Amino acid sequence: MIVTAAAERELIVSVLSAYGAPPAAAALQARWLVEADLRDVGSHGLQRLPMLVRRIERGLIAPAADPDVSWRTSSVLVVDGRRGFGPVAGLRAVQECVERARSAGLALAAVGNANHLGILAPYVEAAADHGMIGIAVTTSEALVHPFGGRVAMIGTNPLAIAVPARPGPLVLDMATGEVSMGRILRHARAGQPIPPGWALDAAGEPTTDPAAAAAISPFGGAKGSGLGLALEVLVATLTASALGRDVHGTLDADDACNKGDVFLVADPSALPGGSQDGPVSEYLDAVRATPVQAGAAAVRVPGDRARAERARRQRAGVEVPDRVWHEALELARGQPASVNDGRRGVTPPRPGV
Amino acid sequence: MIVTAAAERELIVSVLSAYGAPPAAAALQARWLVEADLRDVGSHGLQRLPMLVRRIERGLIAPAADPDVSWRTSSVLVVDGRRGFGPVAGLRAVQECVERARSAGLALAAVGNANHLGILAPYVEAAADHGMIGIAVTTSEALVHPFGGRVAMIGTNPLAIAVPARPGPLVLDMATGEVSMGRILRHARAGQPIPPGWALDAAGEPTTDPAAAAAISPFGGAKGSGLGLALEVLVATLTASALGRDVHGTLDADDACNKGDVFLVADPSALPGGSQDGPVSEYLDAVRATPVQAGAAAVRVPGDRARAERARRQRAGVEVPDRVWHEALELARGQPASVNDGRRGVTPPRPGV
Repeated sequence: MIVTAAAERELIVSVLSAYGAPPAAAALQARWLVEADLRDVGSHGLQRLPMLVRRIERGLIAPAADPDVSWRTSSVLVVDGRRGFGPVAGLRAVQECVERARSAGLALAAVGNANHLGILAPYVEAAADHGMIGIAVTTSEALVHPFGGRVAMIGTNPLAIAVPARPGPLVLDMATGEVSMGRILRHARAGQPIPPGWALDAAGEPTTDPAAAAAISPFGGAKGSGLGLALEVLVATLTASALGRDVHGTLDADDACNKGDVFLVADPSALPGGSQDGPVSEYLDAVRATPVQAGAAAVRVPGDRARAERARRQRAGVEVPDRVWHEALELARGQPASVNDGRRGVTPPRPGV
Repeated sequence: MIVTAAAERELIVSVLSAYGAPPAAAALQARWLVEADLRDVGSHGLQRLPMLVRRIERGLIAPAADPDVSWRTSSVLVVDGRRGFGPVAGLRAVQECVERARSAGLALAAVGNANHLGILAPYVEAAADHGMIGIAVTTSEALVHPFGGRVAMIGTNPLAIAVPARPGPLVLDMATGEVSMGRILRHARAGQPIPPGWALDAAGEPTTDPAAAAAISPFGGAKGSGLGLALEVLVATLTASALGRDVHGTLDADDACNKGDVFLVADPSALPGGSQDGPVSEYLDAVRATPVQAGAAAVRVPGDRARAERARRQRAGVEVPDRVWHEALELARGQPASVNDGRRGVTPPRPGV
């Protein structure tokens, strides 16, 4: 079905509020899910709401948690998410870094004990909105096998980079797996095979059966595998997060979230050249104008597609699977009470939103 | 032929000294070329010496230049290489950042006006040697076509990341092209076709003829292409360097080098968790022990191969093509004098080294 972004946002806010999220936290978490759906990243959209609720019920997400932020040096911030929503800790970290980068030119935030960040692009865009470079890296459950290996040992470890440009920044937001588990699951639901090179089965053999996929292949062979592994240990070194198969809590309702997140913000105005968005924009336009190979669409700059998808859906509405919408509606209408150690100031689930 | 690393180093130092490099600069540039040959990256080894000499002769490299370094903020360093050797500016930048990271936790250097850096790994290793994370990015001539495009628009833009671990750090050092132009040229010299997917010809069509290769393909499809492009504009934003097809001076003897280099150093001891090299090392060992796919060698961590190659060649010597060695010998024996605007305090070429 097709819904407006506003309706989706309202529904999510009502559910999260019912489960104890204060207005600002509910709005922020809702914004992150809606942004994913607006950008055609359904795996990080409304579909994640039931898991967020289950994690709140089990005390694995503390919906009212206020992140604890502390500057360790002039440029290094430590953020303890205190089991709160990922976007609450993540956006706070970026905002602090942007503020600090105005004077220090550069700031890094090491975030631990926060829940799933959702899509990374909006964090780095929050730096680019201020004319700054933003970089975000986060780890996740081991779903990717190392190049040549049979077993998943590395997170899908996405990397996002935003660089100021006109009319909008370059915004790279990519996982280091060849494909997302969400996309493999969509193939499974549709009864379609997956292409060779996407995944291995439980025995470590290449498979085209999405239901058998046990380990996603790294993107780009040995290089992509090396990059994902480097990001895994980089994040763990800065956040003291768990590593590899010990990472839990972004996909399950059983464990505290023990991955880590790192944000870096750099202010070009601290440098002699100052803002470079003029020459950068001109160059990116030249890249967009590159003659294309037979059968290829126009060359795109990272972020172009998401921007176009977002604009289209803001006009035409967001496609959401019926199942996902109805599940969210049911959550809004109220579910059987369950233990929730993490809830504070909880309001009863509101019926009939 | 096979030579010792010491003999190679001595030969390079004698040539560079003859062309006006002071002892420290000659030794550092020599170390960078020898390190490349020791690690089986011949394209960045002794083979580059004649081009360095031609660039000195034409005033495009100032072999005695002392980089100008200036801290713009508590964490941001600007380095003007003053047309000197790349390693002189690059290593100085890293050393300054390491020193600053002890107090600030984090430091970034934006380097301009320096010549080719050579292999990136030793710069980030210089951070890891102090228990710190090192990241290096540099741009280069546009040799890579954007995903779906027919024309080279993006540098090979390598990225290096070192993360402390035992017995040695993880050291990723990868270009964002599918393959290096050096490797394509080796196929051309050997009269061997290149595999499909490596390159396009001048008309923008896929080619397996190494002599026809005009644009290298990005590694990892759209993701690798996006990463290379993001690094291109990130470096240009921080260093005000040239972009895309306007980048010159790492492969030619005609133009000043107008690419940029960025180094980032972060000190884990600034963070509450402190050094994580225990858990990181344990994890990397588990990754190395991943069961392997049929036909695959053992799973390797970035840096493992370079370390093994280096150890082997330190024992057994460095293989250098006869042509490359003799060219270097001829340079050491003295060449016809030529105009050299960039030479200062030049000593006459020494014969018979």
